Amino acid sequence: MTLSEQMTQVAKQAKAASRLLGRLSSAEKNDALRAMADALERSSATLQEANARDLQTATALGLSAAMLDRLRLDAKRIAAMARGLREVAALPDPVGRVLEERTRPNGLRLQKVSVPIGVIVIIFESRPNVTADAAGLCFKSGNATILRGGKEALQSNKLIADTMVNAGRAVLGARFPSEAIQVVTTPDRQAIPALLALPQYVDLCIPRGGEGLIRAVADCSRVPVIKHYKGVCHVYVDADADLKMAEEVAYNAKCQRPAVCNAMETLLVDRKIARAFLPLIGRRLGEQRVQLRVDAEAEAILRPEIPNLKSEIKRATEQDWFTEYNDYILNVRVVDGVEAAIEHINHYGSAHSDAIVTANETVARRFLAEVDSAAVYWNASTRFTDGGEFGMGAEIGISTDKIGARGPMGLEELTSYKWLGLGNGQVRS
Amino acid sequence: MTLSEQMTQVAKQAKAASRLLGRLSSAEKNDALRAMADALERSSATLQEANARDLQTATALGLSAAMLDRLRLDAKRIAAMARGLREVAALPDPVGRVLEERTRPNGLRLQKVSVPIGVIVIIFESRPNVTADAAGLCFKSGNATILRGGKEALQSNKLIADTMVNAGRAVLGARFPSEAIQVVTTPDRQAIPALLALPQYVDLCIPRGGEGLIRAVADCSRVPVIKHYKGVCHVYVDADADLKMAEEVAYNAKCQRPAVCNAMETLLVDRKIARAFLPLIGRRLGEQRVQLRVDAEAEAILRPEIPNLKSEIKRATEQDWFTEYNDYILNVRVVDGVEAAIEHINHYGSAHSDAIVTANETVARRFLAEVDSAAVYWNASTRFTDGGEFGMGAEIGISTDKIGARGPMGLEELTSYKWLGLGNGQVRS
Repeated sequence: MTLSEQMTQVAKQAKAASRLLGRLSSAEKNDALRAMADALERSSATLQEANARDLQTATALGLSAAMLDRLRLDAKRIAAMARGLREVAALPDPVGRVLEERTRPNGLRLQKVSVPIGVIVIIFESRPNVTADAAGLCFKSGNATILRGGKEALQSNKLIADTMVNAGRAVLGARFPSEAIQVVTTPDRQAIPALLALPQYVDLCIPRGGEGLIRAVADCSRVPVIKHYKGVCHVYVDADADLKMAEEVAYNAKCQRPAVCNAMETLLVDRKIARAFLPLIGRRLGEQRVQLRVDAEAEAILRPEIPNLKSEIKRATEQDWFTEYNDYILNVRVVDGVEAAIEHINHYGSAHSDAIVTANETVARRFLAEVDSAAVYWNASTRFTDGGEFGMGAEIGISTDKIGARGPMGLEELTSYKWLGLGNGQVRS
Repeated sequence: MTLSEQMTQVAKQAKAASRLLGRLSSAEKNDALRAMADALERSSATLQEANARDLQTATALGLSAAMLDRLRLDAKRIAAMARGLREVAALPDPVGRVLEERTRPNGLRLQKVSVPIGVIVIIFESRPNVTADAAGLCFKSGNATILRGGKEALQSNKLIADTMVNAGRAVLGARFPSEAIQVVTTPDRQAIPALLALPQYVDLCIPRGGEGLIRAVADCSRVPVIKHYKGVCHVYVDADADLKMAEEVAYNAKCQRPAVCNAMETLLVDRKIARAFLPLIGRRLGEQRVQLRVDAEAEAILRPEIPNLKSEIKRATEQDWFTEYNDYILNVRVVDGVEAAIEHINHYGSAHSDAIVTANETVARRFLAEVDSAAVYWNASTRFTDGGEFGMGAEIGISTDKIGARGPMGLEELTSYKWLGLGNGQVRS
């Protein structure tokens, strides 16, 4: 079989499986999810053995310590996967919700109801726990999953998926389709383009990982892709901000967990309060030795403070404003009011998460309306863009797209809808 | 300028315009729409002159009479465009609706609000009225439009768009961005791929027209495309159907307007009632001399009826089951109950509109759940899949996709959403 034939078979089987998944009741899906969780815990030792083989190969390939750590499965991480599946089992079924309902003058009752999307391809890098998390969320929402993880995690990913499928079949028998969760095992790098050339079987692709991976997937795909490339998030401190609140929000957005996509990369400060605010936040960020990359105006204000700052200060380059550092580095720019802040964000940002701190509602409303990002905050940290923090219970990723899901993607964001027309013989005249 | 530079300029200007459109109030948008309607009516003579030039070129190019008719603008059609814009002005603003709202335990208030999508490319064939209809709907929903019509309608399309833009500026001045509605005028066929290679500026493409056009667009696009390729719609008559109702629904679905995408192309009849139902519907469809393309079983049942039928009967080929005739032709197949009907529809259909006629709720519920189409009807004609019939007030097209809008697309379907987080200093711990 050629690669293209192999991928067609995988995709076709997934489509057939997705039809069967649509027939399962919520109770059946939840029973299966709990059985999967139990099975993962029972298989903890075997999973760690498979993972050890992956680690061995990865070590031989010279992967970095950080990547090896991400790849590692220990009893605690396996228990966390199981806990995740149990949490998904406890969430409401996202399928079958009546989103809208209306009766037309001719008596035809129209219902817009949520339905599974169908077949979802998940592409990710080294963490094997994504296999369980993503497959669990897709299964609960009635979708068949095709997983393509990093080649360094192949043994682990395969065994996690097999364990889940076997548990599903043990509980539901033939009602659980074996191809509901599939792992692409070929090492061929062309497997992704081959799979994403099949819109007749694959309904959606969600890539997770670095910008390079995601761009490569989006560029080759002929099926819809929901994604975010990066998180270049901003906090704008307006002239009418409570400066203490602004300091707390900015510090949190940068320092609470700098390595994630909803952390702040650029601080914008209204010229009117720059002299008052920049020394405050400069000293505060110094606690974490955050490197500041500043524009000329911010530099001029901060220069007298340099002896008191624990942070390095350097001038920002044009490229810096576009950059996601995921580190203790922050761009700082002085801007002329909310309009300039909005312009900066819509130009340099990544449409992910941006915040304004101000006591002025008119200014805030303008920022909320005109910043073209998935999540826009008024007097709160950008760090809240997260399925858990949004009360979704779980998250499969974050979207900065505008077609389909936008922002954090939980179970509901893994559904589409259809229209039901319930009549008693209506015909069109 | 190269074509790619030209298209980049068009797309960039549209993106800039879309930012300004977001600032208009509902009243401003409605005033502009009504002014556009008035201006089209006032310009009726000039529009007909421009259209006459298009018709002259098209005649010289040897276009068919049907195509020339579609291209023609007379006073009545211009008045209809104006009426359409006034109707859109009267509809509620689809932007700014609060779709969901929740307050988190930390007091952070989350609002999911509808927002414009941004820049929408509309690709269509010969009817120039699409320019006014599509641009009006996009404008009302806060989107900038880039229109690419057939080259045979260029003069007409350009003048309609110019008239609308001038009317908008006359009412709103500089608040109405001139690039809110643009027509691509280059005859170069590569303009579409060049435009659809710009996901950084273009947010969505909606192609309207024949399957060939739509496939070409979908195949080349790097921006999301919402579309339907064709409408291969089915009516399944179940064993428990009221046969009179089934006859009316099937007759309506086929004959009320056969040339449209929601007309039935295939009738599926449960074996249990085939002997009773096929002669009835055969005679009824004979009134319109509908050609029947039948399977062996239907043929055997209908053969004794042939002397009484006014319709031609022939055997269906495998390809016929996939075919959208848009004509007085109907495939007829006898199937073994609802499961076989669902399988046929999901295999041969186009995921557009399908109906079951039955008095049995269990069977109906299964059909509604398992037929994977945008609109699924129980005891009603497939012909209802339409923005007007759904009460949307207007329609820009119909989608059989699952990411983004599905089914008829009105104003709400031309919006995306964003999350607003309203706090009083919340930070993440």
